[in-house]
Amino acid sequence: MAQSRPQLGIGLIGSGFMGRAHAFGYTMAPRVFDLPAALDLRLLADVTEDAAAEAAHAFGFARSTGDWRALISDPDIDIVSITAPNALHREMALAAIAAGKHVHCEKPLAPTAAEAAEMAAAAEAAGVKTQVGFNYLCNPMLRLAREMIEAGELGEIRSYRGIHAEDYMADAESPFTFRHDPAGGGALADLGSHALATAEFLLGPIAEVMGDCVTVIDARPDGKGGRRRVEVDDIGRAFLRFASGATGSIEGNWIATGRKMQHDFEVYGSRGALAFSQERFNELRFFSTADAPGRQGFRRIEAGPDHPPYGRFCVAPGHQIGFNDLKAIEMAGFVQAIAGAAPEPFNFRAGERIQMLVETIRRSSRERSWLSVGG
Amino acid sequence: MAQSRPQLGIGLIGSGFMGRAHAFGYTMAPRVFDLPAALDLRLLADVTEDAAAEAAHAFGFARSTGDWRALISDPDIDIVSITAPNALHREMALAAIAAGKHVHCEKPLAPTAAEAAEMAAAAEAAGVKTQVGFNYLCNPMLRLAREMIEAGELGEIRSYRGIHAEDYMADAESPFTFRHDPAGGGALADLGSHALATAEFLLGPIAEVMGDCVTVIDARPDGKGGRRRVEVDDIGRAFLRFASGATGSIEGNWIATGRKMQHDFEVYGSRGALAFSQERFNELRFFSTADAPGRQGFRRIEAGPDHPPYGRFCVAPGHQIGFNDLKAIEMAGFVQAIAGAAPEPFNFRAGERIQMLVETIRRSSRERSWLSVGG
Amino acid sequence: MAQSRPQLGIGLIGSGFMGRAHAFGYTMAPRVFDLPAALDLRLLADVTEDAAAEAAHAFGFARSTGDWRALISDPDIDIVSITAPNALHREMALAAIAAGKHVHCEKPLAPTAAEAAEMAAAAEAAGVKTQVGFNYLCNPMLRLAREMIEAGELGEIRSYRGIHAEDYMADAESPFTFRHDPAGGGALADLGSHALATAEFLLGPIAEVMGDCVTVIDARPDGKGGRRRVEVDDIGRAFLRFASGATGSIEGNWIATGRKMQHDFEVYGSRGALAFSQERFNELRFFSTADAPGRQGFRRIEAGPDHPPYGRFCVAPGHQIGFNDLKAIEMAGFVQAIAGAAPEPFNFRAGERIQMLVETIRRSSRERSWLSVGG
Amino acid sequence: MAQSRPQLGIGLIGSGFMGRAHAFGYTMAPRVFDLPAALDLRLLADVTEDAAAEAAHAFGFARSTGDWRALISDPDIDIVSITAPNALHREMALAAIAAGKHVHCEKPLAPTAAEAAEMAAAAEAAGVKTQVGFNYLCNPMLRLAREMIEAGELGEIRSYRGIHAEDYMADAESPFTFRHDPAGGGALADLGSHALATAEFLLGPIAEVMGDCVTVIDARPDGKGGRRRVEVDDIGRAFLRFASGATGSIEGNWIATGRKMQHDFEVYGSRGALAFSQERFNELRFFSTADAPGRQGFRRIEAGPDHPPYGRFCVAPGHQIGFNDLKAIEMAGFVQAIAGAAPEPFNFRAGERIQMLVETIRRSSRERSWLSVGG
Repeated sequence: MAQSRPQLGIGLIGSGFMGRAHAFGYTMAPRVFDLPAALDLRLLADVTEDAAAEAAHAFGFARSTGDWRALISDPDIDIVSITAPNALHREMALAAIAAGKHVHCEKPLAPTAAEAAEMAAAAEAAGVKTQVGFNYLCNPMLRLAREMIEAGELGEIRSYRGIHAEDYMADAESPFTFRHDPAGGGALADLGSHALATAEFLLGPIAEVMGDCVTVIDARPDGKGGRRRVEVDDIGRAFLRFASGATGSIEGNWIATGRKMQHDFEVYGSRGALAFSQERFNELRFFSTADAPGRQGFRRIEAGPDHPPYGRFCVAPGHQIGFNDLKAIEMAGFVQAIAGAAPEPFNFRAGERIQMLVETIRRSSRERSWLSVGG
Repeated sequence: MAQSRPQLGIGLIGSGFMGRAHAFGYTMAPRVFDLPAALDLRLLADVTEDAAAEAAHAFGFARSTGDWRALISDPDIDIVSITAPNALHREMALAAIAAGKHVHCEKPLAPTAAEAAEMAAAAEAAGVKTQVGFNYLCNPMLRLAREMIEAGELGEIRSYRGIHAEDYMADAESPFTFRHDPAGGGALADLGSHALATAEFLLGPIAEVMGDCVTVIDARPDGKGGRRRVEVDDIGRAFLRFASGATGSIEGNWIATGRKMQHDFEVYGSRGALAFSQERFNELRFFSTADAPGRQGFRRIEAGPDHPPYGRFCVAPGHQIGFNDLKAIEMAGFVQAIAGAAPEPFNFRAGERIQMLVETIRRSSRERSWLSVGG
Repeated sequence: MAQSRPQLGIGLIGSGFMGRAHAFGYTMAPRVFDLPAALDLRLLADVTEDAAAEAAHAFGFARSTGDWRALISDPDIDIVSITAPNALHREMALAAIAAGKHVHCEKPLAPTAAEAAEMAAAAEAAGVKTQVGFNYLCNPMLRLAREMIEAGELGEIRSYRGIHAEDYMADAESPFTFRHDPAGGGALADLGSHALATAEFLLGPIAEVMGDCVTVIDARPDGKGGRRRVEVDDIGRAFLRFASGATGSIEGNWIATGRKMQHDFEVYGSRGALAFSQERFNELRFFSTADAPGRQGFRRIEAGPDHPPYGRFCVAPGHQIGFNDLKAIEMAGFVQAIAGAAPEPFNFRAGERIQMLVETIRRSSRERSWLSVGG
Repeated sequence: MAQSRPQLGIGLIGSGFMGRAHAFGYTMAPRVFDLPAALDLRLLADVTEDAAAEAAHAFGFARSTGDWRALISDPDIDIVSITAPNALHREMALAAIAAGKHVHCEKPLAPTAAEAAEMAAAAEAAGVKTQVGFNYLCNPMLRLAREMIEAGELGEIRSYRGIHAEDYMADAESPFTFRHDPAGGGALADLGSHALATAEFLLGPIAEVMGDCVTVIDARPDGKGGRRRVEVDDIGRAFLRFASGATGSIEGNWIATGRKMQHDFEVYGSRGALAFSQERFNELRFFSTADAPGRQGFRRIEAGPDHPPYGRFCVAPGHQIGFNDLKAIEMAGFVQAIAGAAPEPFNFRAGERIQMLVETIRRSSRERSWLSVGG
């Protein structure tokens, strides 16, 4: 039985925070899930030969290279995972697509929606599968939330509040980096994009936005003893109109002192509500007006085998999955899509969509006016 | 010593939710605090003689009347407390001011800022003291929050999120009431006003707003078997620019299924943060970057004698004060202002201010554009 | 109607922490509740004339005295409230009973169960009503918990964990006080007694105990530059066997650094569970196996008008009552019992019962063996 | 460099809940950590050839067998991981030791401390390394807690409360299993053992215990239409005396309806306290009396790179590790011990120790008297 499965060769570009998470995800996905293909960690590329060799050894890749183009042209590679800095995403992805590879690319997919669209179109033309790293959406509790909403357990959905706040840019002395590049950087692109992805995952398409993007720390150390002007937002807010008629708001904030992972949302419907915090992402709080009077209240549902795919990780409830497990779920979904066993969960079109939302919110903020999405 | 204190005769108009709370507040304030005047519950007015008599008996008022004008013209009355429906606030308050009474009026003070200004000006001209019922601001933990912000414990303040959400209008079958009156009603006026008051209490004046007011349940039972169109907002949101340069957002929502008292805020500064929920209003969570690495985290400060005026209620920390205690603090502040021992904490000008903010946000929402406050 | 109600003259002994709470309770009880008698704060006794006069003025008592015996013999006094140090409880209560007064006495009622029994018997012989200050049991959420248990909402009750921990004796340099007196003092008597009272309030009589009493700080400053040996427990634990067959444990602890009011319990039944913390005493968490699979979880019920007598304080849920409100409920219950409108909620026999449990646990600890309660 | 590392062949017995976790742990440990040896998943044994083949395929083992003795005698196997039912632990472990293998065995190690001692002695005589599966102790937050205690951040440790409660046996209709076997089964052995391990991990050796073991559901379905008598405890409690002088209590409970993973503790010292719940195991709450007055409170420390080995999994704080990650840490520790790079973290002597504590508590409960540990 096992012999009949195809084998997919994995090539990973980058070995930092996300490279690590990808390697872990590809390692665990076939152990946790019954995948339609076997995965073989074949080649890891990094900026130098040495860094690549060290990471390949650590993460269990067979070979390494200091040249990402060599990885992309390698005939043994079926899947290219891109975790390099944002500015390189487009070039790498287009090259990989041209080489006929399936491509997983970390978010933000591209600095502009137009470039993301170009990437998505190229993939579609080439007939390869794509994926963007919206790992928070892989959480069984978010899947549960969406199912509850779709099943009408909250009644008609009325309003939404979404947040993604962290504090890794809160220190005004933390240096200027590629994340501060006016082309594509900023808290809205970096974190608000997660809040937008979750909002659409749960409530469907956003039709209209009013943005409010703010730069708080307007210059950061340039690494040469001076300071460099920052033009990207430290906080990006938006009012939302969903196509369904529901309304809401999101905030992306990377200077929220004390917050490490405040990816939170609240959904209010006519008969119930949900509240979630990534700070405790194995829980979902649920209020139902169907509960008896005097016995109503937000109940804390703990993740368990009733909430797929939690049970693949652990047969007992309440034991909890971790961040890297979300990545394993993400990679499993990608492999299933490649094998034709399921649609692409969050492909380049989804990445384009989020990028377009980010851009529209930014433009709305600049123009200080509501804008239709895609309009 | 006690004999030398003046005695203030209290007249209360209304005996519903807020009438009750006022009566309790006037009863407890002189027991809990060392007030510069004694309080005497003299006269209670309600819509009928019987209702007034019953409430006067229950709440310990000496006399009762079915005619609020009789209360206002009564020479024994020094303080008039108005808890009648919103539409009557202006007429009652102006009459009381004209009669030389000090006036406490529940919020919203008036349907328009202009009327509120008229009321404030009348009081100033008459030299009487006024108060508007922003009871949440009387919480020792809010006072603590403000002191911490002012003392720089959070560093430079950067951003703010405020919410006041409840669910008492979530049921589409709950009938049309005076709260749905286009002149002055709506979630933003009713609940968002609290969120705005707290925002300015903590961070100072708001300079500019962008509003988003939404009517979700557009018709409600009219009590005659039909439905009446609702024009006021069920949800009112706003982006905020504070004069200090900080930015933020608030939301007022009275259809937030499951929420009973979500008067929450988060304040982020360059060196610390605060998080608060009225759902647990004897607590304030505080994050400080001054804590040692590896030991940082939001700490849950429980209200205690270190947080005045908590100690007036209880000498031991953690025992907790209740909603009615907030009202006792509020009434004590008013009496101190009347006696000249302290400035008016939240007078009619403060009520006008909030009303003006509400109006500006509403207009901003209608015009779909940012507006200067007072501009 | 009001005129026909009898009037009860209140005499209060002591004006410290608990004296204050009693005064507040007697003040608010008739405002919040529709009591069968009016209450008149007539006389306050303290250790000196001056202290008494000042407290009488502050709390609204008509007269004051430096002689508690004068209070007890005063013909205008119907109810004597004793909040003096524990060592005086018995003498004062017996004198008050002998004078035909109804007596409210703070806990612990007496240093020994035998003395408590003597006091209870005296009251019964005299036909006066008594009350002991188990204020935590007056919480609407505890009443709800008991009703849920009695109604079988948790199924058969199996196990229990109770705690009452604070930290007011955690500092080894806090001086020796009457609370360290070997006759009646200690954490078990002071705090564990509350945990025991709650345990029996919810699950019925305890039949057997195994105690573990520990002195951690064995000498404290004697106020004269030396240290005085402490023999009472800083921590008192017990295993419990309830008459119902359920088992459990409690802990009283007054050196639990950081804890201000950890009066917590968890009850586990065959079909549900409850969890409560006095740190958030307007909430009760409830788990039910009757909830749908995948939707189960502890739900946070917020106190509201569905949970009597919360609605007497506030018509809206989630607004919260405070510690002093518990005392108002307590005093209302006492007045109702005096008027014959209800049984005594927690009379001297209840106080004797708790004292007997405390003594049995202490003896069990000394003898290092299980003991039957009352055996 | 990589070539010079020895390679260890892994043999896994069992593929259920814990077998799965072991497979995941061995897979991830060398990816996450820089181990002194490479791991090769070589052979998996289960009760049938088919089950073993299927699990081997799923978990990535090269070969499979239906005969655990074949696994133990296989010369390619260096480490034998035993996750078979408890009754087989001893026989399997002794055989593996005799064959010169390093042995990881799930807990409980053996039905009796004597058998565990025999196993430990055999391993010592054979010079092989051993490990028992106390995975909760591998949590970075528990390591942090121990370091804080050892560094004196809490001052002198005074008291402890530990719990491990779940509800997987709460249903009286769940059938009799090997876990109900009088030789070794019961909630104290199954769950209380974790609470005891954590207690000693944090506070050092327990010197004396007083046990209270209770059977609540005294008969369970026997799978043949009848019921079989249960003699093991559903709840096991103990008072504890630590050698350090601190006192405490623990409870193991497998019928705690609603609890999925209540492995909680609280530690109180003279200058601080810690509170932890496995329900949110990426957090540790810390109270310090060194915080400024009015600013004290339990602070919620979120796991991050400051708390090794969290940073091996993720470079950003607050992202959280999961249950299976604890197992990866556990396996890494074992491999390091085998390579001589670190002492065995929780070897068979530690397993014997816990078993001895369990037995002493059980005997104490039967004899209804305090017992010295090891006495």
